Amino acid sequence: MAVNIAILGFGTVGTGLPTLLSENKEKLAKILDEEIVISKVLMRDNKAIEKARSQGFNYDFVLNLDDILADSEISIVVELMGRIEPAKTYITQAIEAGKNVVTANKDLLAVHGVELRSLAQKHHVALYYEAAVAGGIPILRTLANSFSSDKITHLLGILNGTSNFMMTKMSEEGWTYDESLAKAQELGYAESDPTNDVDGIDASYKLAILSEFAFGMTLAPDEIAKSGLRSIQKTDVEIAQQFGYVLKLTGEINEVDSGIFAEVSPTFLPKSHPLASVNGVMNAVFIESEGIGDSMFYGAGAGQKPTATSVLADIVRIVKRVKDGTIGKSFNEYARSTSLANPHDIENKYYFSVETPDSTGQLLRLVELFTSENVSFEQVLQQKGNGKRAVVVIISHKINRVQLSAIQDKLNQEKDFKLLNRFKVLGD
Amino acid sequence: MAVNIAILGFGTVGTGLPTLLSENKEKLAKILDEEIVISKVLMRDNKAIEKARSQGFNYDFVLNLDDILADSEISIVVELMGRIEPAKTYITQAIEAGKNVVTANKDLLAVHGVELRSLAQKHHVALYYEAAVAGGIPILRTLANSFSSDKITHLLGILNGTSNFMMTKMSEEGWTYDESLAKAQELGYAESDPTNDVDGIDASYKLAILSEFAFGMTLAPDEIAKSGLRSIQKTDVEIAQQFGYVLKLTGEINEVDSGIFAEVSPTFLPKSHPLASVNGVMNAVFIESEGIGDSMFYGAGAGQKPTATSVLADIVRIVKRVKDGTIGKSFNEYARSTSLANPHDIENKYYFSVETPDSTGQLLRLVELFTSENVSFEQVLQQKGNGKRAVVVIISHKINRVQLSAIQDKLNQEKDFKLLNRFKVLGD
Repeated sequence: MAVNIAILGFGTVGTGLPTLLSENKEKLAKILDEEIVISKVLMRDNKAIEKARSQGFNYDFVLNLDDILADSEISIVVELMGRIEPAKTYITQAIEAGKNVVTANKDLLAVHGVELRSLAQKHHVALYYEAAVAGGIPILRTLANSFSSDKITHLLGILNGTSNFMMTKMSEEGWTYDESLAKAQELGYAESDPTNDVDGIDASYKLAILSEFAFGMTLAPDEIAKSGLRSIQKTDVEIAQQFGYVLKLTGEINEVDSGIFAEVSPTFLPKSHPLASVNGVMNAVFIESEGIGDSMFYGAGAGQKPTATSVLADIVRIVKRVKDGTIGKSFNEYARSTSLANPHDIENKYYFSVETPDSTGQLLRLVELFTSENVSFEQVLQQKGNGKRAVVVIISHKINRVQLSAIQDKLNQEKDFKLLNRFKVLGD
Repeated sequence: MAVNIAILGFGTVGTGLPTLLSENKEKLAKILDEEIVISKVLMRDNKAIEKARSQGFNYDFVLNLDDILADSEISIVVELMGRIEPAKTYITQAIEAGKNVVTANKDLLAVHGVELRSLAQKHHVALYYEAAVAGGIPILRTLANSFSSDKITHLLGILNGTSNFMMTKMSEEGWTYDESLAKAQELGYAESDPTNDVDGIDASYKLAILSEFAFGMTLAPDEIAKSGLRSIQKTDVEIAQQFGYVLKLTGEINEVDSGIFAEVSPTFLPKSHPLASVNGVMNAVFIESEGIGDSMFYGAGAGQKPTATSVLADIVRIVKRVKDGTIGKSFNEYARSTSLANPHDIENKYYFSVETPDSTGQLLRLVELFTSENVSFEQVLQQKGNGKRAVVVIISHKINRVQLSAIQDKLNQEKDFKLLNRFKVLGD
């Protein structure tokens, strides 16, 4: 017996599926009684079809989604086009036509997940997207299954391979932001407009999806605080190392009594933290839970084969469910109403890098400013000035988000101070 | 509706289940429509029952397994007694009575897994044992589900928390083997007879189970090479660090064209390897596969709550399957006939620590001995002798298992040489 699937979009990930299917033919035959067959592939235009044919791909290429929707032999539609449209329309139509859907589209799931999931529920079809978060790491299914008996209190992830590659170069090779970005673009990790990667937007999409699986709560894009890499200076990276930390872009969700707080931001990670040694384009998700305690899931965040492997695992799951007659169950069955944490309840240490006039009395002014908000210092480093301007670096004791805002406001009000950077510092 | 479960053995893990059930009541209610109720608990004797009652546990304690088997309301039996007997007999009877079984018993599964699994298949009941390997890490279900679309070529794990605790103390604090063992016993990590932990037996049980899930192959206990910690000296640990490695007890399975090779042994791990920073009682499994590439799963290897959480995840899975009408499917559906690698195909670098007479010409003899087996050196360190005996340390280039045996035989034939230690060295 054959299970016919259709692929929408035949780019990097899509062209990886045929290889995986043939490499794992024997194993898949052991697990399923049925063979997975790529029945139709939706292409953008005839030129794309010609190109695919010239590369040796001999599928039934079509230009119209209706050819796939009308094919009653096709039970699974795999969307690998990316971006919101036309992917959203196509997935909607596929679900309405009774097809099960697999997608790796994090943007779409983060922004329109609620709508698409409820549509899939209504039509009793599967909507799976393991590959949307941390590419090759099977984190979503693990959260849905293995953490069903556990309460997660804290999730900390390195969720964007491009920015982690850049931060690794900055930390280990002393490169600047610009040098790291140029290399990431040269290697094809970053696009010519790197906004999504370096401003934490891509990571925030993944964090939104993780929030649903780990905390059962849906977050709107603007409910996730975001800051990115653009302002990071060589000295920030050096000071992190000097103080025993590694600077990385993390996505974090904390649950406190009042609710959850989610943030993507550059973070000082203690060198001994398991995430501190996650380098290059690798991703990892570190979880603290009441049952299991600390756990971490590490792997490739992107790339043709890792992503295609996660997509294929979703397809296999659907084939099994169809055979078992249990199709249509939600990918993630844990859902609560969202409650956002009171900003008084979210506490962290912070690193502040402040440019001041290079004259006596400036440190005193800074100390007074912080003290007026009841913020004390764990470490202070006054760097040698150039006669005009100097930089003072502070690591605070733990403060809450309200204190943090107040400090930032006061620093901004002082015309001759300039807050160069403010990063979260992990640890007690 | 309630799902009634029975617990066999009410020790550390068993007494953790009630807490977990109440802590996760709300979440479990969202995921399941049914409440999990501990209906009966099998105890050793009346004294044990009295003790449990005095600790505030108010269950229907029974002394006879038949009371559980005859209770048609009980659908799941959770075996937490450990060891082979009477656990094996009890699980057999439970399966034959049509009960689904959850166990954390690695010894039993590693030695009698084939028999028990086929019995469970025959009676269309579940036999799940996520907690048997790496306690809190959901590695078995992840291998069964998320790697269904991937081909694993290499598995390397830190699978025994006690020995990893000891190795961490030896590496980081410079403790001796005896000091580390005494501390592990004081903290309750090691038993008074530490054989299972320090000789790699416990790790080999877990490796046998992992082999089934990751490679689809069943290994008999004597098909896994084993060496342990007892011979490790302070100098071995120091030299590892000096050469850029960390010495740890690992379990490893490699697949080559001729088959798989499994081994538990002290191993020099390059400091940059993700497993090198897995310290204390933590466990981790590092996987290389053709699809995902490198991935790692890290967490607590033992302990009441992590183990109970994995047990409860198995129970939840059974409840779902019963509801879906899909109970009786094998925990792991990937099975091939076992084929063991040709020893010529398994290549590693090795560390040799050889005691020689403290006189000129000994290094030449050693070099000649290794050269006669076509083995060349990557690093050599001759330590200062005491006038009578000296120690020479060698890291070889890659050699296969046949060369390794030949070298060891020749070293043993030289009466005035003594092979103090031989450890595997990871890396190219």
